[in-house]
Amino acid sequence: MEKAVAPWKQLLLTALESNSSTTKNSAAFIQLATLGPDGRPANRTVVFRGFQEMTEKIQINTDCRSRKIDDLKHCPYAEICWYFTESWEQFRINGRVDVIDGSCSDLMKLQQREKAWFASSLRSRLQYLGPHPGLPSLTEQDPPPSIIDAGGGPVDSFCQLVLEPDKVDYLNLKIGKRVHFTSEVTINGDKHWTSDNINP
Amino acid sequence: MEKAVAPWKQLLLTALESNSSTTKNSAAFIQLATLGPDGRPANRTVVFRGFQEMTEKIQINTDCRSRKIDDLKHCPYAEICWYFTESWEQFRINGRVDVIDGSCSDLMKLQQREKAWFASSLRSRLQYLGPHPGLPSLTEQDPPPSIIDAGGGPVDSFCQLVLEPDKVDYLNLKIGKRVHFTSEVTINGDKHWTSDNINP
Repeated sequence: MEKAVAPWKQLLLTALESNSSTTKNSAAFIQLATLGPDGRPANRTVVFRGFQEMTEKIQINTDCRSRKIDDLKHCPYAEICWYFTESWEQFRINGRVDVIDGSCSDLMKLQQREKAWFASSLRSRLQYLGPHPGLPSLTEQDPPPSIIDAGGGPVDSFCQLVLEPDKVDYLNLKIGKRVHFTSEVTINGDKHWTSDNINP
Repeated sequence: MEKAVAPWKQLLLTALESNSSTTKNSAAFIQLATLGPDGRPANRTVVFRGFQEMTEKIQINTDCRSRKIDDLKHCPYAEICWYFTESWEQFRINGRVDVIDGSCSDLMKLQQREKAWFASSLRSRLQYLGPHPGLPSLTEQDPPPSIIDAGGGPVDSFCQLVLEPDKVDYLNLKIGKRVHFTSEVTINGDKHWTSDNINP
């Protein structure tokens, strides 16, 4: 049986389509908020790498050594803020994030990670061979490698984040409309979305 | 004695200047992450309303009835993520937020709030007279007023947020540079910033 598409997903795909001319493809840039181990919110720009096939799960690539991994191990919940400058639409997508690195024991997830690796440009892949992000920049450190084996699988520092949305707040500033989507999991494990029009 | 300007502030002013042609002035749009009472991060787009005069404090206008006010009363720390699409620069600005509404007992702060009110367009001010943000949208509710007394002071629902930065993470993707700025308050109450080059 085909699963129903989450009602907000079509809105998001339409927004992506209508904002595709945005400068330097910045429509795929999203802000990911997490909670740091110090109890303070943290927030940074990441790149939307598509939905996991046939699902509403959002894929992001990152470096295992980045601070957000510590954040997510401490608190797995995150909120994406996605603002489209052309169409004046905002999606706030809240959910739990699955952190998939090379030590993951789930073969399906490891395959998804590998797929994400090969879907990245060679230039993107090279970043994972660079020095430890966030550590002091040493002038005497070796320059990062400038070539990478195109056929080689994901390196240890490559990590896939998969956010499974459970709440989505949609705002359209042009028409003054705001919709809150919430999900519930039924007894037989199906996810069911409901929506409410709320005041902007 | 003139206080030293925070070293990241000049970088930010330069970024604002060099991104000023960005579509629909979206260079002033920033993402503000807070922590919800449910323990999950929350994230939304807000508008940068300038620095508080002669300081490095960041001003934002909001509605007292919005969810972020509950968040900030529960946890006053927030992180702004500010990405400039033209210059490929990102500022992550972490600090404590002061929530200034009409019930504030500090006269200086109330004056700043009033100033922020009059600096807003009449159209922006009208929003604060609309129905309670986030509550169900009722089809039978009265339409919001369409005119406002230009000389009238701030309405009850108008709130000023003032974020006092204590950590700033600057990233320049064009030149692969990242700088972490941290502040310390000295014994005589002066704020002192230090910076470290870190790996992007």
